[in-house]
Amino acid sequence: MTSNTAAAQPTPFADRLWQAVKTGQTRVCVGLDPVVDRLPATIRERAVTRHGDSPLAVAMAFLEFGRGIIDATAEFAACVKPQSAFYEACGPAGLYVLQALIEYANERGILVIEDAKRNDIGSTAEAYAQGHLGNVRLIGGGVAKGFTADALTVNPYLGRDGLLPFIRACVEHGKGIFALARTSNPSAGDVQDLLVDGTPVYAKVASLLHELGHGLAGAHGYTPIGAVAGATYPRQLAELRALLPQSWLLVPGYGAQGATAADVVDGFDADGFGAVVSSSRAVIFAHAAEWAKAAGMDYKAAAAAAARKMRDEINEALAAR
Amino acid sequence: MTSNTAAAQPTPFADRLWQAVKTGQTRVCVGLDPVVDRLPATIRERAVTRHGDSPLAVAMAFLEFGRGIIDATAEFAACVKPQSAFYEACGPAGLYVLQALIEYANERGILVIEDAKRNDIGSTAEAYAQGHLGNVRLIGGGVAKGFTADALTVNPYLGRDGLLPFIRACVEHGKGIFALARTSNPSAGDVQDLLVDGTPVYAKVASLLHELGHGLAGAHGYTPIGAVAGATYPRQLAELRALLPQSWLLVPGYGAQGATAADVVDGFDADGFGAVVSSSRAVIFAHAAEWAKAAGMDYKAAAAAAARKMRDEINEALAAR
Repeated sequence: MTSNTAAAQPTPFADRLWQAVKTGQTRVCVGLDPVVDRLPATIRERAVTRHGDSPLAVAMAFLEFGRGIIDATAEFAACVKPQSAFYEACGPAGLYVLQALIEYANERGILVIEDAKRNDIGSTAEAYAQGHLGNVRLIGGGVAKGFTADALTVNPYLGRDGLLPFIRACVEHGKGIFALARTSNPSAGDVQDLLVDGTPVYAKVASLLHELGHGLAGAHGYTPIGAVAGATYPRQLAELRALLPQSWLLVPGYGAQGATAADVVDGFDADGFGAVVSSSRAVIFAHAAEWAKAAGMDYKAAAAAAARKMRDEINEALAAR
Repeated sequence: MTSNTAAAQPTPFADRLWQAVKTGQTRVCVGLDPVVDRLPATIRERAVTRHGDSPLAVAMAFLEFGRGIIDATAEFAACVKPQSAFYEACGPAGLYVLQALIEYANERGILVIEDAKRNDIGSTAEAYAQGHLGNVRLIGGGVAKGFTADALTVNPYLGRDGLLPFIRACVEHGKGIFALARTSNPSAGDVQDLLVDGTPVYAKVASLLHELGHGLAGAHGYTPIGAVAGATYPRQLAELRALLPQSWLLVPGYGAQGATAADVVDGFDADGFGAVVSSSRAVIFAHAAEWAKAAGMDYKAAAAAAARKMRDEINEALAAR
């Protein structure tokens, strides 16, 4: 049947994230960065009993643990952020588990930012975009999904033609990207702070991201093109907020890396939107903290308590500014 | 048993690549970048018959095709370079195939550069390094392998603490990295050519790479820290050769992207070592070229002929300089 009606457009990620923050009254992103040694003993033992002492056992332990964390923190988080590196460390089995965790969150309506910092050019960047944000074209002409995250972190070192294939996939499929601008690590400045006629490289990158977002803003004023801006450098975070008024900021470095609620408030817009603050270790391994052990909390209860506390700290700091 | 004898050190990648160039008298790196539409019909049909019209069928077609290309070009190439993006585009099944292809080359003594442009910081970069260049630690205390490439491409935007975990893995396991310096794409200059007091960002990155390689040179004077320097910008290639006298250069852009043998000669050291030139589409899809069709060549014969021609062109250009 021929029709003049356009196909239903997917709701843009930027609007879905806005709604998740609004509905949950939370700006917390829970990082799913599992490490073998820090998993609860019951999960470790069950995996080895079932799968032997193998990479598959590690991957399956990550799956059980990740599902538990997603369930426990769903009420207090706007999104989750699995870090691909930890799943890739298990080899191919880890990638099945990464996708299974993404699907687990998808099915529960929890937004997923896949932290994989992908980057390449031309048809290669397009392949990454198809695999992580779009559709795989099959041999017989059909399409299927590879990884089904709502958004993907990317690295901007290759310039605009390294970003455009990702942006096109975002527009087509209602997804988002977060491009590295100013990261949270001690040596971030080696490249990102180099001064170009007085302007640091990260600000040049921000200008490029802003330019590429022209005309792409959704219902709440945000484009699919977000940026990563570390919480550990509050001055640069505020600067990026100003340079990128239409970009969601993904702000890592809270908790284990040392940043506090006071450090992140300048990452938000006037209405308290426009940023999500990510914490991994301080939430998912909260069961190892003295306060959690003293309270006899299991890993889920401890993660829930840590996520709730983080949500409240950020909301209070925002209310007080 | 306690022993004063140190464990046998693995032969460094830089030395193994030197030997592969010397033995094969070839500077060719064959890029394994499969695309569904361009695979031979017999391979496509066989995969769908066996696996249905599924992402697994795409991945298994990539496996058969990749093995065929590795067999056909082994005589003419110093190494192969699977591009992770095309395998990730199939979802998790694609990663099994990527690892299966890497193993297929490992078993034949063919060096593998995994082109995945990974990047992150601290324990996350360490997880990538473990998964792609080192060992996975298992729950019971054993170790296993994730992906078993000889070298990995990485992105330097996060600075030295984004590179050091990879470098440590290289030293421990006899592996290598190639960090992006000046890439082959049209917009590479958006970030890489920004001038810092008259010095472009890519040269600043090169200085950082050179510094990080201090004391790590192997038997032939090269360190585990290589760099990516596009063939499409010969002036920058020559500049990077001079800035990185101890680094292998991975030079993409030959063939389909337009660079010729004359464009790449300045990437080599005085003895004709220190660089491998990568070509993907012009080699692996040579069967679609008029000359191959006219000669009735199948995809293997065409890829072998294209790799041989490229080997000879580069060697002749080197001999003539």
